[in-house]
Amino acid sequence: MTTIVQKFGGTSVGDVQKIKRVAERIKERMDRGEKVVTVVSAMGKSTDALVDLANDITDNPDPREMDMLLATGEQVTISLVVMALKEIGVDAVSLTGWQAGIITEENHQDARITDIRTDKMQKHLNDGKAVLVAGFQGVSEDGNITTLGRGGSDTTAVALAAALDAESCSIYTDVTGVYTADPRFVKKARQLASISYDEMLELANLGAGVLHPRAVEFAKNYNVTLVVRSSMEEVEGTYVEEEASMEQNLVVRGLAFEKNITKVTVERLPDQFDTMSNLFTLLADANINVDIIIQQMTSDHGINVSFSIDSSNLGKTLDLIHREKASLCYSEIRHESSLAKVSIVGSGMISNPGVAANMFKVLASEQVAIKMVSTSEIAVSAVVPEEDMIRASEALHTSFELDAKEKEKIEAAKA
Amino acid sequence: MTTIVQKFGGTSVGDVQKIKRVAERIKERMDRGEKVVTVVSAMGKSTDALVDLANDITDNPDPREMDMLLATGEQVTISLVVMALKEIGVDAVSLTGWQAGIITEENHQDARITDIRTDKMQKHLNDGKAVLVAGFQGVSEDGNITTLGRGGSDTTAVALAAALDAESCSIYTDVTGVYTADPRFVKKARQLASISYDEMLELANLGAGVLHPRAVEFAKNYNVTLVVRSSMEEVEGTYVEEEASMEQNLVVRGLAFEKNITKVTVERLPDQFDTMSNLFTLLADANINVDIIIQQMTSDHGINVSFSIDSSNLGKTLDLIHREKASLCYSEIRHESSLAKVSIVGSGMISNPGVAANMFKVLASEQVAIKMVSTSEIAVSAVVPEEDMIRASEALHTSFELDAKEKEKIEAAKA
Repeated sequence: MTTIVQKFGGTSVGDVQKIKRVAERIKERMDRGEKVVTVVSAMGKSTDALVDLANDITDNPDPREMDMLLATGEQVTISLVVMALKEIGVDAVSLTGWQAGIITEENHQDARITDIRTDKMQKHLNDGKAVLVAGFQGVSEDGNITTLGRGGSDTTAVALAAALDAESCSIYTDVTGVYTADPRFVKKARQLASISYDEMLELANLGAGVLHPRAVEFAKNYNVTLVVRSSMEEVEGTYVEEEASMEQNLVVRGLAFEKNITKVTVERLPDQFDTMSNLFTLLADANINVDIIIQQMTSDHGINVSFSIDSSNLGKTLDLIHREKASLCYSEIRHESSLAKVSIVGSGMISNPGVAANMFKVLASEQVAIKMVSTSEIAVSAVVPEEDMIRASEALHTSFELDAKEKEKIEAAKA
Repeated sequence: MTTIVQKFGGTSVGDVQKIKRVAERIKERMDRGEKVVTVVSAMGKSTDALVDLANDITDNPDPREMDMLLATGEQVTISLVVMALKEIGVDAVSLTGWQAGIITEENHQDARITDIRTDKMQKHLNDGKAVLVAGFQGVSEDGNITTLGRGGSDTTAVALAAALDAESCSIYTDVTGVYTADPRFVKKARQLASISYDEMLELANLGAGVLHPRAVEFAKNYNVTLVVRSSMEEVEGTYVEEEASMEQNLVVRGLAFEKNITKVTVERLPDQFDTMSNLFTLLADANINVDIIIQQMTSDHGINVSFSIDSSNLGKTLDLIHREKASLCYSEIRHESSLAKVSIVGSGMISNPGVAANMFKVLASEQVAIKMVSTSEIAVSAVVPEEDMIRASEALHTSFELDAKEKEKIEAAKA
């Protein structure tokens, strides 16, 4: 008998009607004779409401207690889904993280799963019950409730799929699958039938937002077949698996873009071994996420360093670096905001030199200024002016042959 | 070092400001060098909101899943109180029912506590932490989350006090203590310095509502000193303990009253061994709570049975009895609504014959019709017309010497 794991996110369980629909979806799988484990998130904005409560009490909530607080959100959802299942005649049982045997590190708010003790789940599955598991949470060996941090419910689902040796792990979202680009902006975007873990990982990291990178990494490590599909309509989703079978001839599989990027340049730092380490440790300690980093020597043996950050962190970043002017020993700091990052992704790049050059050519022909560049084995990213982001993406989408055919365009428009 | 247990109900933790006040109260006790375990309920109306969600999904929610759902309410409160404590410099830790080692039967929605494994609590207390425990909930030996039913948080607090061998268990409410009668209605009501378990039990059962009878019974069985006190102001509360010391000379310690009572009379039932059993099993199976029962023989060897119920159950009761007319074999069914029950309570009654007669005398002099009577060792109750309830209570309050002196009246008015 096949075991499958599926996950429904916060918007898919946002109200009672949607919860009933999720119950129907589970029933369909049960009716096929499958063993079904379903992971759910907290309902819609309920986590935000809990965070607001905590913030009304303190600016600096204790991490253990935040986990205690936030874990209630998913617990509410699992119980309601089971009630909805029983209402339509499906036997089911809900399990919190600790009841499902999801053991994590003690690291509150961002705990990693260390073990999954599946006996209780297996017993319920063997009894013919649908099993509902609270996403995003676990328990430490000491018996403290923990949460997994961002993308936690996706990670829960993938980890359960690995532990239960499930046939697949379906991630239900509000889109029908993974697209060559965000269809809300790139009109010719096309849904992919399949994509490899590495490509998905680049796209996830690059802000495509359908799947959390951590969950994709987990799936890759344990070779879990992921399926991204719509919780609203019954259409084929996108398979994320070891080798994307369908479209291997494509060099570029998709593209991603994100706004609100600021480039910061620190000029004439001293040419010392610890210059880079001092600067970026400073930022890391303040939890400022740095993306692209460029280091250049000046003619007089100084170092110019540029890096990109989310624009929301600009004030904090400038304050920090100004405050450390004496110890960092730089001459000047400059910044440029209203930038965006456009990236192309595809595992075919490894064996296809010149992809980056092609990308630059396209951007040049569109008269888009390139502010920064970064490359990995399967991705090339360019930081460009925010106002050019969509135009650049559409041009890249077309020139790398990602555009949908007419029929596909209609489907993309529906999504 | 003294260990104390205290409990704050839903209104005492109804919003963020009140939660901060509870944290201050806990800090005061910690500052005295006491080991403090605090049990809290769900915030204000949050349990109602959860019940509404369940009712939107099904008319008949699964009991296990209701427990899973409702247990989140207290979990939210404990985490917020700990955050508030840490904000004012008090080290603290929150524990759910299962984390606090509260083991119950598997009987969902109304589970009884079977064991309390205190090692985790003791460890945290020894580490100098304030311990916050989620009221109303526990865990079965099978690892299922259970709830204790009505009055559950009071019961949690008393059970923890017994298990931890605490000096006392304070129940913080929105009144300053236990009164001779409900001060909202009986103007001369007076707060009691102390009251015995049995008297409190009668008052609790009679609807005085300050403490749940189950918690009082638990306290009596384990000889836990209960203190009922105000969460709003720092005044002496009422001690509930084995022998109420201060006012032993009083025959009547307090009185209780409740409205919305209906008397139902079933006429001319057959005089058979199983007549009473058939009738009341019928009602019990439908979860209709019957209070006073009176059985009378008719001159022609039939039986007339009268009983009192909450008026909200009248329709259901009449339907049931009508439907079973053939099997029950009665001639007629009558009912009288808009009634109330007035009760006087005092352990001094056992050694004072004539208390009931005195009560009837007072009611007669006030021209209050007595519809039904019931007596126990330490209480006498009379069912009277609802419109006479307050007048009858005030007359009884005065004639049994319960009235407050002037100074006490002012305090009662403040409450």
